[in-house]
Amino acid sequence: MSAAAPVGEDSGLFAEDLAEAAALDRADPLAWATELFHAGAADPPYLDGNSLGRLPKRSLSRLLQLAEDEWGEGLVRSWNGWMDMPARVGDRLGEVLLGAGPGQVVIADSTSVNLYKLAAAALDSLPGRTAVVTDRANFPTDRYLLAGLAASRGLTLRLADFDEVMGPTPEAVGNVVGADTALVLLSHVDYRSGALADMAGISAVVRDAGALTLWDLSHSVGAVPVTLDESRADLAVGCTYKYVNAGPGSPAFLYVSRHLQQRLRQPIWGWMGKRDPFAMEEPYIPREGIGSFLSGTPPILGLALVEEGVELLAELGIDRVRSKSLALTAHLIRLADRRLEPLGFHLATPRQDGQRGSQVTLRHPRARELCQRLDSSGEVILDFRPPDRVRLGCAAPTTSFTDLVRAAAALARSAAELTSGEAG
Amino acid sequence: MSAAAPVGEDSGLFAEDLAEAAALDRADPLAWATELFHAGAADPPYLDGNSLGRLPKRSLSRLLQLAEDEWGEGLVRSWNGWMDMPARVGDRLGEVLLGAGPGQVVIADSTSVNLYKLAAAALDSLPGRTAVVTDRANFPTDRYLLAGLAASRGLTLRLADFDEVMGPTPEAVGNVVGADTALVLLSHVDYRSGALADMAGISAVVRDAGALTLWDLSHSVGAVPVTLDESRADLAVGCTYKYVNAGPGSPAFLYVSRHLQQRLRQPIWGWMGKRDPFAMEEPYIPREGIGSFLSGTPPILGLALVEEGVELLAELGIDRVRSKSLALTAHLIRLADRRLEPLGFHLATPRQDGQRGSQVTLRHPRARELCQRLDSSGEVILDFRPPDRVRLGCAAPTTSFTDLVRAAAALARSAAELTSGEAG
Repeated sequence: MSAAAPVGEDSGLFAEDLAEAAALDRADPLAWATELFHAGAADPPYLDGNSLGRLPKRSLSRLLQLAEDEWGEGLVRSWNGWMDMPARVGDRLGEVLLGAGPGQVVIADSTSVNLYKLAAAALDSLPGRTAVVTDRANFPTDRYLLAGLAASRGLTLRLADFDEVMGPTPEAVGNVVGADTALVLLSHVDYRSGALADMAGISAVVRDAGALTLWDLSHSVGAVPVTLDESRADLAVGCTYKYVNAGPGSPAFLYVSRHLQQRLRQPIWGWMGKRDPFAMEEPYIPREGIGSFLSGTPPILGLALVEEGVELLAELGIDRVRSKSLALTAHLIRLADRRLEPLGFHLATPRQDGQRGSQVTLRHPRARELCQRLDSSGEVILDFRPPDRVRLGCAAPTTSFTDLVRAAAALARSAAELTSGEAG
Repeated sequence: MSAAAPVGEDSGLFAEDLAEAAALDRADPLAWATELFHAGAADPPYLDGNSLGRLPKRSLSRLLQLAEDEWGEGLVRSWNGWMDMPARVGDRLGEVLLGAGPGQVVIADSTSVNLYKLAAAALDSLPGRTAVVTDRANFPTDRYLLAGLAASRGLTLRLADFDEVMGPTPEAVGNVVGADTALVLLSHVDYRSGALADMAGISAVVRDAGALTLWDLSHSVGAVPVTLDESRADLAVGCTYKYVNAGPGSPAFLYVSRHLQQRLRQPIWGWMGKRDPFAMEEPYIPREGIGSFLSGTPPILGLALVEEGVELLAELGIDRVRSKSLALTAHLIRLADRRLEPLGFHLATPRQDGQRGSQVTLRHPRARELCQRLDSSGEVILDFRPPDRVRLGCAAPTTSFTDLVRAAAALARSAAELTSGEAG
């Protein structure tokens, strides 16, 4: 066997790749972090932490403690400690992961509901403007939300076509915003290509046009250091079940820059957004500050898991997480160039470090079948995105370089089998 | 000591009351149900299950199993089983507790967000009508939500003044609805007095006026058998953290009567409300049926706890729960008449069984101080509602007749101490 031959009869692993990955894993300063997470009995490489992050061990203890002690024993009295969790955990998330000073972030609702609240508030604040802009390739819920708001208000929804791999640039955004534009909604990291947008540059262009920016951080929060204040972003939302590891359907967050909090009023007037929620006889007067963007009773179990996820990332350090994430994605791109390009895969993620988030996307004409095969065999967990994309999420705290080799090998073998199956 | 004297020097307990309660507890066919719930180390009588229900033991096991096995081990693959939970658990809640046939209930979001969605959809469906009606005494979030929607659409918000103890009647509602009315939003059980509204009668009056009804079931679901289909209710929402025992801030539910599902379109167009959420390239086309009222990613841990809460009530039987609840509240009213009326308390809950939910409310001029004292002493957990109400929730599965005597005795002693403190 040559040095590049698969290890074992049909394992598809390349000895030199494995040796290289093992060396990288030994040198990885975050390798110990996998110990912080629950490990399955027979875990295949998990390259879908960008859909659902792994379970932190401490989150399980916290869940038990919360349910037994705070709910079971403390009963309704525990609301004294729970009541400020949306703002307290929001502040901490803002500090650790978003580059947001205190009083600008709350944990609440779902990403969809938060998009609705902030977009509606933004549109109401700019009544003379008739257009809203988003990326035609943006995550569906973002596009649908805007479509619904535009339809109900008689506004024009402008779907911009940005470069498929590189995503929106300040120049490209400049070409689609103007004096008619109220709001520009973009993803910080594109869910398909993993492209990382220039938040400061785009925010400046949009601000110059007199419009507001609304950033969806779902694919960057917890993986890429976000600098909302420094980038002069106006509004942002995001989910916590991907790189923040807060569990399936965990509550989302929203950010409203301090300078906009007086001017913007969100449409869902629930008791938690009101000044003194328990003074029940008064008319609705919104709270001062970010609390006015709350609506209903906060989901306490979910909030506790968000808090655990944020504290875990605080302990690891988002800069160290980012360094490892870049090393992982760069390595995966090298593996793809070496082993997968010859088998019909094409890279659909920016090659330059500063231009991508924490995933690598490969296109293959038969990606659907490939992913179905891997799904059945269970040898690697990754993500298919129609029509032809394989998405490989590299959650730094829980992914090793060896995982990447195993995933690339599985893709290579599966592609080879598909072809030989046809030949046979 | 006379038979009516307090037991012990300052216990405030009356021997005859205790003996009577003990006999009732022995005869209670649901007494065993307390075994299904987590019991605190030193639990005082808990008469605030109408704010936050107790922790079912099985919910704790389910939470662990879900976190460890489904999230921790199954990872993203578990979405195959999770995806239909909003509709599946909604159907079961509808069947067991709401008198709603399948395909009309989903679990989603908070009560506030659901109120917003359904009220907005209702108003959009009746564009010619200019008024929305609710009870001036309705729970604040209900009033605020309507106020926000009315303000943004230039509609009139009509706050009706119904009888403070008896709540809205069909006749009284008839006087405040007319050809201008789009929507009537009422609570099925009043959060202050505990009055139970005549859902069928009121729905008929509203329907005759060409308007739609939206019922807030937060204080009836799990305590009073609800008959949405039979009562011809149009729309309903409610929370699950009270009598459904699904935990602090657990997700809410919404009901849209089948005949309205085609006509109504909710405003928050998220991916979960779309036909085929994973076909991401299409424009937003709502799902068929109740699924179109979903928006964001469903909160899986919360959904599992709702499911456990519903199954527990299915096992107990909502009719048995209702029977015990009525026996408890009737007994508490007798105790109040006998022991508390002479101390300045006044009943603010309907006396007739069919006219109240599962709580007893007493007014006292010094209710705030009384409740603060009891809160400090920790001898009973109940609820103060400004300006002068003590709310005693009687969650049937977890409340004994002896609990009621202890609560009444604590109130009596506290009131007597307040008075003697002033005399001394």
